[in-house]
Amino acid sequence: MSQSRLALLGFGNVGRALVRLLKRKEAELKEKYEINFTVTGIATRRHGFAISPNGLDIEKALALVESGQSLYEISKYPLTDSLDFVHSVPADVLIEITPVNLQNGEPAISHLQTALDRNMHAITANKGAIVHAYRELSELAQAKGRKFYFESTVMDGAPIFSLFRSALPATQLNSLRGILNSTTNLILGRMEDGESFEDAVKYCQQIGLAETDPSIDVDGWDAAIKVATLVTVLMGLPLTPQEVDRTGVRSITPKMVAEAKERGKRWKLVCTAERDGNTVKSRVAPELVSPSSPLYSVEGSSSIVEFHTDTLSSLSIVEGNPGPETTAYGLLADFINAIRDQ
Amino acid sequence: MSQSRLALLGFGNVGRALVRLLKRKEAELKEKYEINFTVTGIATRRHGFAISPNGLDIEKALALVESGQSLYEISKYPLTDSLDFVHSVPADVLIEITPVNLQNGEPAISHLQTALDRNMHAITANKGAIVHAYRELSELAQAKGRKFYFESTVMDGAPIFSLFRSALPATQLNSLRGILNSTTNLILGRMEDGESFEDAVKYCQQIGLAETDPSIDVDGWDAAIKVATLVTVLMGLPLTPQEVDRTGVRSITPKMVAEAKERGKRWKLVCTAERDGNTVKSRVAPELVSPSSPLYSVEGSSSIVEFHTDTLSSLSIVEGNPGPETTAYGLLADFINAIRDQ
Repeated sequence: MSQSRLALLGFGNVGRALVRLLKRKEAELKEKYEINFTVTGIATRRHGFAISPNGLDIEKALALVESGQSLYEISKYPLTDSLDFVHSVPADVLIEITPVNLQNGEPAISHLQTALDRNMHAITANKGAIVHAYRELSELAQAKGRKFYFESTVMDGAPIFSLFRSALPATQLNSLRGILNSTTNLILGRMEDGESFEDAVKYCQQIGLAETDPSIDVDGWDAAIKVATLVTVLMGLPLTPQEVDRTGVRSITPKMVAEAKERGKRWKLVCTAERDGNTVKSRVAPELVSPSSPLYSVEGSSSIVEFHTDTLSSLSIVEGNPGPETTAYGLLADFINAIRDQ
Repeated sequence: MSQSRLALLGFGNVGRALVRLLKRKEAELKEKYEINFTVTGIATRRHGFAISPNGLDIEKALALVESGQSLYEISKYPLTDSLDFVHSVPADVLIEITPVNLQNGEPAISHLQTALDRNMHAITANKGAIVHAYRELSELAQAKGRKFYFESTVMDGAPIFSLFRSALPATQLNSLRGILNSTTNLILGRMEDGESFEDAVKYCQQIGLAETDPSIDVDGWDAAIKVATLVTVLMGLPLTPQEVDRTGVRSITPKMVAEAKERGKRWKLVCTAERDGNTVKSRVAPELVSPSSPLYSVEGSSSIVEFHTDTLSSLSIVEGNPGPETTAYGLLADFINAIRDQ
């Protein structure tokens, strides 16, 4: 039986869904994977920090945060700096779920570096850390004999990186094509139903899918950083979102959407990347797709990626109806795999 | 560096594609996976058997069989019984690629049992062995400390079993839905283009997709044994193809196909299975699907399976344009994984 102390950096929808999932799977983790866990630290943006070497009362932590109260109730931890938290939390695994920084990946990179330096496994849902420091963090993890996993960075909890790591040995990825941004896919779908772009954006903001500034989604930045993440890791070719040829969906008018619908087609924000020797051509742009394409049926916040490799001509992964629980599952899978792969 | 001696039982299109793939990936296996291999035995139905403890000349074996000659040229091995071959071949891994026996899974089960008894890893593309002896063979493999892998039994080389084994820990499969039989999917597609059922069957026979007796495909037996294989392994609920509620495609007339096409729909032979406590409801039957379904765009010999689990609401795997090389890759992946998982 392995004993794992978990530290959660981020306790929003995903972090709280992870804690619930951990509770639900607690017996299975013990019986099937011989993993016993405690949560020894939780760091939040708005509800303070909590640390306890013997394990926090996570039910109480959930209740406090969900009723808008501070974690100070369950642990009188004085610090408010996230990096100090990683430096001092007594843990074996850091789960890093802070917001993405497109420009330089900080402070996520420092969080993960510090965790690995302290001999923790480093698990993150943060794409910024991958596109700006994949090689450094991977090398550090290897040197420390710890795992650096990040399944939830792309397509929520759908297994993409673990698929290539474990289920597709001796395979070279040559190209990929997919729909990777939920918000724009939902916006385009609602425009097909006659809604204006502005109202569709508002709807996505209301349900918590889009931020107050929706440009990260509608200008293709989120899709671009996902392409960059996939290319960096799966093709082994470092790529930043800034290097992706990027066009968002602002140019797609209701008239274009209606015309496409009449012709039985759909506008989709399509991501592509193609290896060309040691370089890669990558693009995010709206495309018209027809029913004969696997991209056509990908509705709402669902996503798809089609891989072309040197061993399987075409392999696609489709994730339907994701939510915070799905992202949380990717983190749980990373945690279990970090323990059993170590 | 691990030294692996491979024995191939079956040297048709898939077996020969595997040998070519092994040659192509030889350097990568050494460098990345520290696997050195020799092929010490090949058993064929029509071209004799060959065994050599120091490794056969596989280029020559390919040339001989592809020019219709006997393997007797490269190894004067007197036996012609496949079980004797498994009993006597000096090997660490058996690759079992014999034809499927729907009724009782033999002789594949005996081949795999004997291989495991002799401390070999047992790898097969044979669904019959799974639906009739999954538990026994798994337990034997575990007792012997060897691996029993069978990725190529369903959806050619697409990672399905390895996905659940390694990339989806702590996940319960609740239901599945898919298109798993290439021949009927291609037949229905050709009927959409105006071909008769009979001519479409003939075409599938010409390209080597359907057998002389096409009933295994058109009556839904192949789809049923694939459903039974998935349920047996991934749900842990033993199921035989005989227990699957099965309807083939013979009742689908050209008129029905044309009418569906006019309405923008398609007939597909759809496989479903749903867990119901400790039992399962499973079915193979033609269904009308619309463009909003991910099954709609699955054309020709491609296939899809959509999984519903307790952790990911919906995860689909789509394999496009499979062929003997794809099935061969599934066997290669099993071989690599057997060595690195042991």
